[in-house]
Amino acid sequence: MTGKRIAIIGAGPSGLAQLRAFQSAAAKGEEIPEIVCFEKQDNWGGLWNYTWRTGLDENGEPVHCSMYRYLWSNGPKEGLEFADYSFEEHFGKQIASYPPRAVLFDYIEGRVKKAGVRDWVRFNTAVRWVEFDEDSGLFTVTVHDHAKDHVYSETFDHVIVASGHFSVPNVPHYPGFESFNGRLLHAHDFRDAREFSGKDILVMGSSYSAEDIGSQCWKYGAKSITSCYRSAPMGFHWPDNWEEKPALERVEGNTAYFIDGTSKHVDAIILCTGYKHFFNFLPDDLRLKTANRLATADLYKGVVWVHNPKLFYLGMQDQWFTFNMFDAQAWWVRDAIMGKIEIPADKETLLEDVRERETREEADPDTKYAITYQGDYIKELVAETDYPSFDIDGASEAFFEWKKHKAKDIMAFRDNCYRSVITGSMAPVHHTPWKDALDDSMESYLQN
Amino acid sequence: MTGKRIAIIGAGPSGLAQLRAFQSAAAKGEEIPEIVCFEKQDNWGGLWNYTWRTGLDENGEPVHCSMYRYLWSNGPKEGLEFADYSFEEHFGKQIASYPPRAVLFDYIEGRVKKAGVRDWVRFNTAVRWVEFDEDSGLFTVTVHDHAKDHVYSETFDHVIVASGHFSVPNVPHYPGFESFNGRLLHAHDFRDAREFSGKDILVMGSSYSAEDIGSQCWKYGAKSITSCYRSAPMGFHWPDNWEEKPALERVEGNTAYFIDGTSKHVDAIILCTGYKHFFNFLPDDLRLKTANRLATADLYKGVVWVHNPKLFYLGMQDQWFTFNMFDAQAWWVRDAIMGKIEIPADKETLLEDVRERETREEADPDTKYAITYQGDYIKELVAETDYPSFDIDGASEAFFEWKKHKAKDIMAFRDNCYRSVITGSMAPVHHTPWKDALDDSMESYLQN
Ligand SMILES: Cc1cc2nc3c(=O)[nH]c(=O)nc-3n(C[C@H](O)[C@H](O)[C@H](O)COP(=O)(O)OP(=O)(O)OC[C@H]3O[C@@H](n4cnc5c(N)ncnc54)[C@H](O)[C@@H]3O)c2cc1C
Ligand SMILES: Cc1cc2nc3c(=O)[nH]c(=O)nc-3n(C[C@H](O)[C@H](O)[C@H](O)COP(=O)(O)OP(=O)(O)OC[C@H]3O[C@@H](n4cnc5c(N)ncnc54)[C@H](O)[C@@H]3O)c2cc1C
Ligand SMILES: NC(=O)c1ccc[n+]([C@@H]2O[C@H](COP(=O)([O-])OP(=O)(O)OC[C@H]3O[C@@H](n4cnc5c(N)ncnc54)[C@H](OP(=O)(O)O)[C@@H]3O)[C@@H](O)[C@H]2O)c1
Ligand SMILES: NC(=O)c1ccc[n+]([C@@H]2O[C@H](COP(=O)([O-])OP(=O)(O)OC[C@H]3O[C@@H](n4cnc5c(N)ncnc54)[C@H](OP(=O)(O)O)[C@@H]3O)[C@@H](O)[C@H]2O)c1
Repeated sequence: MTGKRIAIIGAGPSGLAQLRAFQSAAAKGEEIPEIVCFEKQDNWGGLWNYTWRTGLDENGEPVHCSMYRYLWSNGPKEGLEFADYSFEEHFGKQIASYPPRAVLFDYIEGRVKKAGVRDWVRFNTAVRWVEFDEDSGLFTVTVHDHAKDHVYSETFDHVIVASGHFSVPNVPHYPGFESFNGRLLHAHDFRDAREFSGKDILVMGSSYSAEDIGSQCWKYGAKSITSCYRSAPMGFHWPDNWEEKPALERVEGNTAYFIDGTSKHVDAIILCTGYKHFFNFLPDDLRLKTANRLATADLYKGVVWVHNPKLFYLGMQDQWFTFNMFDAQAWWVRDAIMGKIEIPADKETLLEDVRERETREEADPDTKYAITYQGDYIKELVAETDYPSFDIDGASEAFFEWKKHKAKDIMAFRDNCYRSVITGSMAPVHHTPWKDALDDSMESYLQN
Repeated sequence: MTGKRIAIIGAGPSGLAQLRAFQSAAAKGEEIPEIVCFEKQDNWGGLWNYTWRTGLDENGEPVHCSMYRYLWSNGPKEGLEFADYSFEEHFGKQIASYPPRAVLFDYIEGRVKKAGVRDWVRFNTAVRWVEFDEDSGLFTVTVHDHAKDHVYSETFDHVIVASGHFSVPNVPHYPGFESFNGRLLHAHDFRDAREFSGKDILVMGSSYSAEDIGSQCWKYGAKSITSCYRSAPMGFHWPDNWEEKPALERVEGNTAYFIDGTSKHVDAIILCTGYKHFFNFLPDDLRLKTANRLATADLYKGVVWVHNPKLFYLGMQDQWFTFNMFDAQAWWVRDAIMGKIEIPADKETLLEDVRERETREEADPDTKYAITYQGDYIKELVAETDYPSFDIDGASEAFFEWKKHKAKDIMAFRDNCYRSVITGSMAPVHHTPWKDALDDSMESYLQN
């Protein structure tokens, strides 16, 4: 172990899980390698570190944040709770089930503050380039320290990529976009729903961002919401001023034309068209290319880069589970690096593992199946490490309930509560229904 | 010469000037080195290649374009005309003096189409990293070919950085920005003034972007324009619904508070706060760090990197002159590379040249002095190459006139016309005053 150096790229929930994983081994008296986490933002928390900025940040780097004001968790917190750090431990009490962003940020931060790992992170430091040298068996990581405006390189035995995959927008072009006379933006650049109050907005897409950004604009007073889908409608029971249309055909001036021949005046178009796995710091031989799916391409056990098993990726899957899945991965990667878990030397074995996961994912398009599939993946990893085991099926149950609650009333699903699988206690009902809770501050949320 | 390979980074006006410079030598029968121009966009023209996109582009790269719809040249075209390719040659007639973006794009493209250099450019190819190897004396340039999603490296004898410096925004924070309830953007992301029709807008800054974006919003129906300055007001005779204020102190909700104690309701804040010289593909030993000024730091003759004279930069100065200055630089760099101009071997001589330029620039803060200073710089370079000499003092005169016309009527200065120093002919008066010319298409503009 001694002398090994590990680079972690990113201090979002995944990177922080990795720091906590190593720190927990150290706390048990184990000798751990030297850890350096490079984070381009000036704080940790990843997507949960909100900024009003869009486009490029104060350092000239692409803004990472895709979150926005008034964002509340879109899934129950009982599905993501850390097994080693419960909400009750952090807040001193049980809290309601769909916390706003600031509350979850505080929770994420609480665990790593307690672990005391902040000086393992080099902030304001963007990773520019990573290369692997066959002869030395080492990675050279080149970074830009913005505080000093200084570029430098260091070598590492392992690199763990935890840079997220919901920050580089997928932005399709539709005819007329180049001469649309209103506001045209991707969800990545959406910040404050009040900007759209009194406006006719079009949200394009039929997934989480479309649903949530449309719902927020509705909550904060948009005049009308139109959503349009390429494959299938979201199909919820929408409020009266929300209309779901098939795909957009083109825009002209301020009018949107849909493929069913209908049209509508819109002041703004918000492209909720998803994100790309994008790594501008990796050469071909190290760069993951994958769709946003549960069985990520080329990753043994969902984390080991099959083409060079000294390289790991965290959190690259599409996500039902989040924080607890990142934990399961981080503990597993730690143990692989520390030699407690053996990665098969034979590449074919690694590839076979990937193929098996793919085939199994594709076996059934059902949502319940998918949630269970990802739950099983977490179980598999947790079983191989000392991460506290917890009732993953119970967490899956919370997701099944959540699905039903959304189908019942999309503007009220966040008023429900669930039981923690970590502490066993039931979440309290929040003091204000989501649709009336305009103040999303932590102070307000914790008054229950 | 034979065997030498040259990399040009960027196919904007500067990079294209470099292509034309080499091609013109080849056309005279000279043997030229192999030229590879890397351009991250899918077309040439640099800032003049308009896109509706903001933030990150279809390849995940930062959007380069800082231009917007309805943009007209803010200086007379007689100040930027190519000495080897007049407006009359391109359009078959003389045209009015302040062409819209599309017209200037067409003009820029016309010359390089005629030169037949398009296959020297590798489009959709972002430069990721450049390194210099002392032993071989070669640069390794690593690029990402987005069409193939393939990263590769090649070596070059010289690198010419022509990536521009008006694309990475300088975005200051003011108290309350994080909770402003309207639209908050940098000029870099401004696209369509009609979005702001009927709105109260605040433009921050007192330079060209503030002046021009405010003027556009006025022209396309903004309810009111407020501009605020940090150092000095622009001080033009503004229309009635335009008010100039001192610096912003903070915002609260939708209210902007200024340091003179006044406040104003604003729907949108447009930060016209300038740009940064930013090169995310260059290590410390090759990376230019300079203020936006006429005497750029560390560049001998304004183009040679004093710390490694095999590296050149084009167009890194603040710009009164543009296209013709880039030409002067490109011809000079070509001749330095082709051995016709000798770069002093002694570093102190190079540094002394930089110091002399700085001192001379700082000698007088007057605008006329600055214009003349930059005109003299062009004269100096042109005299050392075969770039067609032209009446640079005459071009400066056009700028002096322009300054007077702006002071007289800021919403009408673009209705004036000037005499070409290349062909000697007078520009016609445009058929419609700028403030009434809502259609900025090339077809419309050329109807004179
Ligand atoms: C709009 C939105 C809402 C979401 N809401 C929820 C929710 O309610 N509940 C939930 O569980 N999940 C939610 N998610 C899912 C989210 O992906 C995870 O919660 C989590 O943030 C993923 O963690 P991560 O560490 O893998 O990636 P990220 O959070 O994206 O963190 C990656 C980190 O890497 C850094 N980085 C990137 N590139 C570099 C570089 N070159 N050099 C240095 N550092 C770099 C970034 O700055 C960032 O800090 C949401 C996602 C989005 C987009
Ligand atoms: C809003 C605005 C309006 C302006 N209006 C005028 C005007 O009216 N008249 C005037 O004369 N000048 C104007 N200018 C000044 C402008 O700077 C010049 O006209 C000119 O565009 C500069 O040319 P350039 O080639 O140096 O840089 P750019 O035009 O910026 O071109 C640089 C090129 O490099 C490419 N590039 C950058 N990074 C990479 C990379 N890593 N890999 C590959 N390619 C890369 C870019 O895609 C781009 O094509 C304006 C500038 C702005 C911002
Ligand atoms: N906390 C919250 O409330 C919250 C809010 C927003 C997002 N999130 C999270 O953010 C992540 C990303 O979600 P997302 O919705 O942004 O992305 P996503 O789930 O990948 O969905 C992308 C959507 O865009 C559509 N699309 C893609 N390309 C298109 C094109 N060319 N034309 C038309 N439509 C196109 C897709 O349609 P097809 O179905 O046809 O492919 C799909 O509906 C998820 O993890 C989600 O949980 C959370
Ligand atoms: N064709 C056109 O019509 C057109 C339109 C727009 C721009 N352009 C071109 O684009 C280029 C860039 O012009 P630009 O105006 O964007 O940039 P600029 O000339 O660099 O001006 C930047 C402005 O921002 C102010 N500023 C910087 N930091 C600030 C802060 N923290 N707080 C408040 N103010 C701050 C500066 O104030 P101080 O003076 O106090 O430093 C200055 O007024 C120029 O070449 C211009 O010709 C052309």
